[in-house]
Amino acid sequence: MNISRGPQAFPRSEYLRRLGSVKFEMGRCDIDALVVSDQHNITYLTGYTALSAYVPQAVVVSIREEEPTFILRRCDAPAAIHQCFMERDKIVAYPEAYIGNPDKDGYDAVVDYLEDVGLASRGIGIELCCLPSQSAEKFRMRLPSATIVDATKAVTWIRLIKSDLEIAVMREAAAISDAAILRAAEVIRPGVREADACAEIVATLVRGANGKPGSGIEGISLCSSPRTGTCHIPWSEDVFRYGSQVNLEIGGARYGYCAGLMRTYTIGSPSDRLRRVHEIQVAGLEVALDAIRPGATCSDVANAFNRSIEKRGLKKETRCGYAHGIGWLEPTASLKDGDMTELLPNMTFHLMLGNWIEEDFGYVISETFRVTDSGVEVLTTAPRKIFEI
Amino acid sequence: MNISRGPQAFPRSEYLRRLGSVKFEMGRCDIDALVVSDQHNITYLTGYTALSAYVPQAVVVSIREEEPTFILRRCDAPAAIHQCFMERDKIVAYPEAYIGNPDKDGYDAVVDYLEDVGLASRGIGIELCCLPSQSAEKFRMRLPSATIVDATKAVTWIRLIKSDLEIAVMREAAAISDAAILRAAEVIRPGVREADACAEIVATLVRGANGKPGSGIEGISLCSSPRTGTCHIPWSEDVFRYGSQVNLEIGGARYGYCAGLMRTYTIGSPSDRLRRVHEIQVAGLEVALDAIRPGATCSDVANAFNRSIEKRGLKKETRCGYAHGIGWLEPTASLKDGDMTELLPNMTFHLMLGNWIEEDFGYVISETFRVTDSGVEVLTTAPRKIFEI
Repeated sequence: MNISRGPQAFPRSEYLRRLGSVKFEMGRCDIDALVVSDQHNITYLTGYTALSAYVPQAVVVSIREEEPTFILRRCDAPAAIHQCFMERDKIVAYPEAYIGNPDKDGYDAVVDYLEDVGLASRGIGIELCCLPSQSAEKFRMRLPSATIVDATKAVTWIRLIKSDLEIAVMREAAAISDAAILRAAEVIRPGVREADACAEIVATLVRGANGKPGSGIEGISLCSSPRTGTCHIPWSEDVFRYGSQVNLEIGGARYGYCAGLMRTYTIGSPSDRLRRVHEIQVAGLEVALDAIRPGATCSDVANAFNRSIEKRGLKKETRCGYAHGIGWLEPTASLKDGDMTELLPNMTFHLMLGNWIEEDFGYVISETFRVTDSGVEVLTTAPRKIFEI
Repeated sequence: MNISRGPQAFPRSEYLRRLGSVKFEMGRCDIDALVVSDQHNITYLTGYTALSAYVPQAVVVSIREEEPTFILRRCDAPAAIHQCFMERDKIVAYPEAYIGNPDKDGYDAVVDYLEDVGLASRGIGIELCCLPSQSAEKFRMRLPSATIVDATKAVTWIRLIKSDLEIAVMREAAAISDAAILRAAEVIRPGVREADACAEIVATLVRGANGKPGSGIEGISLCSSPRTGTCHIPWSEDVFRYGSQVNLEIGGARYGYCAGLMRTYTIGSPSDRLRRVHEIQVAGLEVALDAIRPGATCSDVANAFNRSIEKRGLKKETRCGYAHGIGWLEPTASLKDGDMTELLPNMTFHLMLGNWIEEDFGYVISETFRVTDSGVEVLTTAPRKIFEI
């Protein structure tokens, strides 16, 4: 029996809009076919969110066709039929024999498809720099008549500017992030194992907020004393202790979109030093938000923050954030000195102000925001305070 | 202030044993330095499990040094000092300026390190095929005097055979998997949202079992009617219904090691068809387990299963499993026809017998096992039944 199409996160018109932007860019670059292998770009162009990117798969956007074609592993094809906006004949399954096979893999099926539909001698865009080197080489070797164009971040840059529909989904994700941050304040307690608190925090991320469940689990970092100078440890085997500090980074997820959020907790009163860092950082955060408007650059926002905290004796080494939306880090614009990307309405960022000051001391705060027509809308709304337990 | 080394999952002698095997292989391939960029191989060689692999980082194993050197992003260095078995001078931090920088990245720091320690003109092994093509090219361009050897799966193959200490950790992970499968039978109920059940299942994976917390969240798939023909959907927005079937795949995790486990649930009685598939599959599973012993091949195990179910009218398209341990899928041996990898004691596999029979009908069962001196030890112990709710 056939599987039917499931409920869709976005209407068909939204996907056609995205494809319109991609095809415009393809025209500009003289590309007839674009091979999209980045899993987050695949989500963007089709709605597919199943966890199959550990084997080769790719969406081919043809300049001649309205809908893209998704070439993926046979056993994952039903999920694609269920999740993607396209008609089922746009889902092309490659055989299981290509899995764990040193001679042939899913990218061979992509090349075969390009040949079958008469695109193998045209301009073909490929996300070359993200592909494993042997796969990039395969495309070059097996498409000798094509004019191969490196299109590594073509779709990634396009998805930096969200539609209002995408913003609505990111608001739902942000509400889940807020709920998890508040839940953490209820479950972080002296004597409680970090894992037991994390279980509750993650459960909140899955249950969601406002009747909208989370639809995936993004990375979670819980860095407690003596690990507050680290940033990417999931959690430890410790129990929380009186006097401990906890730095938490989480992100609610909806349909592949996430909204990062960081807050700092203390069990007992914060030290004077931590309180001072918090005040300086929150003031810097407000200055950074004030600097956000269409026409300002990413560099402007970072420098506004950095100037503000440096005036008060603090310094932050890491960048102040990054493009954010599908798949946490969108590898395009960074909120850092020298990144001259101009802010445009509906660009979304994680304003990531975690500051790892010493090996054994750091503080975190962040917000997920979108650029509006005249300024900024902060999507996350958890109180900007040190949560004192 | 300095961060101190945290509790270690394995003693120093265990890491030196692993490095001994790696150096033996390096000697065989005439390599003086091995650049290990695969995050799971980094875990294997150092104990590092923080979530920083989204930016370039690498461990360099030198034939001349007892301990490897870990070159990573500045803000992640404290986590490495805390988690890795090596002395702190073996943690080399590269500047934050290399992040989001089109001209220079962490792999430049790795090349700089190779030059600094006089290894840049020697035989250098690099995991070339897994690296993004532009990074592989960088190593080739910036190391013109080196003899570069493709060492893509050198460490990956070595870690296929576990030590008894690693097996002990995988047993802990397997106990967590068992607990989550049993928890699922308590929380899957008609009228309950899939997300709410998943929240409880994931919370169990984090809380752990037998006093040992989970130490990470592996992929989770919950494919319910009408999606039982799919295999990698995390969960949906639906509620469970009377008459629904639920295929669940989860994995407990300890220190980066996991133990996959799949079971099938029904709300109400299973259909005759499902019951028959279950009987055939469990019989096939037992035949497969009987075929496991040192000297048998991966192909033998798969064919034992396939012959057993085919005799009774069923067929399975996907492979019957894969090497398993650090990071779920170890991309080496597959339990499939034609994979002549010979089983050796303490190799570990996920015997993955999920069978997606039609677009809208599949059944799942699996076990995580190790090869023993004379046969097999199944690490997961959840009942091999259809869980009837």
